[in-house]
Amino acid sequence: MYTDLVVEIKNDHVSGASEVSRKACSAFADFSSEVKVSSKEEYFDRLLKLGVDLVSAQPYMASVFNLANSILYHIEELLPILSVEELCESTKEKAEEFCYNSLNSMQKIAKHGEVLIEKGSKVLTFSSSGSILSILKKAKEEGKKFEVIACESRPMFEGRLLAKFLGNAEIPVTLITDAAMGIFAKEATLFLVGADSISETTFVNKVGTKYLCLLSFEHKIPLYVACERSKFISDAWRPKPTVGGDPKEVLDFELSNVKVENPYYEEIPLSYCQEVITNEGFLSPNDIPNLIRKTRLCTKLMEQVKSFYLTRA
Amino acid sequence: MYTDLVVEIKNDHVSGASEVSRKACSAFADFSSEVKVSSKEEYFDRLLKLGVDLVSAQPYMASVFNLANSILYHIEELLPILSVEELCESTKEKAEEFCYNSLNSMQKIAKHGEVLIEKGSKVLTFSSSGSILSILKKAKEEGKKFEVIACESRPMFEGRLLAKFLGNAEIPVTLITDAAMGIFAKEATLFLVGADSISETTFVNKVGTKYLCLLSFEHKIPLYVACERSKFISDAWRPKPTVGGDPKEVLDFELSNVKVENPYYEEIPLSYCQEVITNEGFLSPNDIPNLIRKTRLCTKLMEQVKSFYLTRA
Repeated sequence: MYTDLVVEIKNDHVSGASEVSRKACSAFADFSSEVKVSSKEEYFDRLLKLGVDLVSAQPYMASVFNLANSILYHIEELLPILSVEELCESTKEKAEEFCYNSLNSMQKIAKHGEVLIEKGSKVLTFSSSGSILSILKKAKEEGKKFEVIACESRPMFEGRLLAKFLGNAEIPVTLITDAAMGIFAKEATLFLVGADSISETTFVNKVGTKYLCLLSFEHKIPLYVACERSKFISDAWRPKPTVGGDPKEVLDFELSNVKVENPYYEEIPLSYCQEVITNEGFLSPNDIPNLIRKTRLCTKLMEQVKSFYLTRA
Repeated sequence: MYTDLVVEIKNDHVSGASEVSRKACSAFADFSSEVKVSSKEEYFDRLLKLGVDLVSAQPYMASVFNLANSILYHIEELLPILSVEELCESTKEKAEEFCYNSLNSMQKIAKHGEVLIEKGSKVLTFSSSGSILSILKKAKEEGKKFEVIACESRPMFEGRLLAKFLGNAEIPVTLITDAAMGIFAKEATLFLVGADSISETTFVNKVGTKYLCLLSFEHKIPLYVACERSKFISDAWRPKPTVGGDPKEVLDFELSNVKVENPYYEEIPLSYCQEVITNEGFLSPNDIPNLIRKTRLCTKLMEQVKSFYLTRA
């Protein structure tokens, strides 16, 4: 049942945004097979409710919003001219197209991004990003000899996982603490990071990415952000990344008069970034505001999800 | 026996520089009571050997070098005019004076530094420094209400220890990961850090301090470095801080093709720092080159310890 998938998505605190969005695609496809309605209007209302439920289930995942918005916008446009049966078919097609693009976007990012890696490159990266991993593995497949400096990424050490995957692909890695970035940045030739979302003038990524940006600026070493187009979202319709992890991940015992804070994400100006590597190719930070402005919005969805924006600072 | 103290100092990987230097003071004092020599020249040669042994035992501790140098310079000057007995007495006096100053310097730094803390101050600090702890405790004693943001300081988490000491002194603390500094820096009104040594244009402190410096610069929040005068040392006669900890402190298992690096210290331009808080009062970074230049050096000691400088980058 598609409703089970909504619950599953809501409780998924492990999968990345791409995987969750593909689950959301399945929810839309299943919905279009399972739903029983007596009118086109009822179909759209039910579809809208599903969109709102999915966006509410993962309010910080730009790609889930973008999926829901693109399907709803599309179906609302077709509402006057198609039958219920055709609307179901069209919903399914649109969901499958999004899923197909999502599955292919990693490969496309890898293909675009790997040209940045040269023989002898020393790539400094922070945290763990599927896009960065695929770029680096692609460069290795192309026979390039290079090294990677990976930061452990406290508190959950996902940098160790990236180091493991790179090491398994026979890419030599130096693993360091996040604080040691300042020492190793000087040796790097290139900085590469992923992003959880990209807005008009900022990107969101794991907390600590800002240090990489300041070092890139100081040492004049170019920094590139890799991110699927489906994670682009306007600053006006996304909640600020206020989510954090359990304080126990930082300190698992109590200290008197000591409060522990554990933010996961931070928002950083895109001006630190040379270019953005997307599945559609390289984008200059200057092109991004216009690109996001062009997104066509389903106003009915926007009205219903705007309560999330109240959490914005 | 003073020779036992030299061995103890060599094997001490736990105590801070101040404590180790006071042990070295005891070694000089004990030497002057225990030594049996037949001439003034022999006395000086034996004293020089002790100085070289102590500097070699802890080559990265500027205060041990400064102690040995000041005693040797002083005794060499007095050599023509004093008897062996008087030289012993003078060595002991000089060592005791250094020890007395060391014991008092924390209190003096606290007294000078606490004026920076105001009602409502939010102090961001990194790692754990005895000088910073004493400044903050002094400000609390003076009845000031303020908060501290402390970074855990990977890999050995000495920031937790600082948070514990501050919390016990009823100072409210927020403990964060090192990577989260970028988020909390904006809220701070003052940045305070200690230093392992200060040279003409740079200071050495725990790796990660550089991030604090870049954030201080970005947000125009003043950064002060607290450091005893006995830790000032010329760039020309100190080894670069290449020491690091056991890689197992960062990752305690093996990953294929992954090398772990664990540097402890980094060297940072003093230009990031507003002023230096010392036991002798505030110093501007501009005054420091001249101040260090004025240090009178015992050339015989310099000749014998210069092999350490070969490790410099």
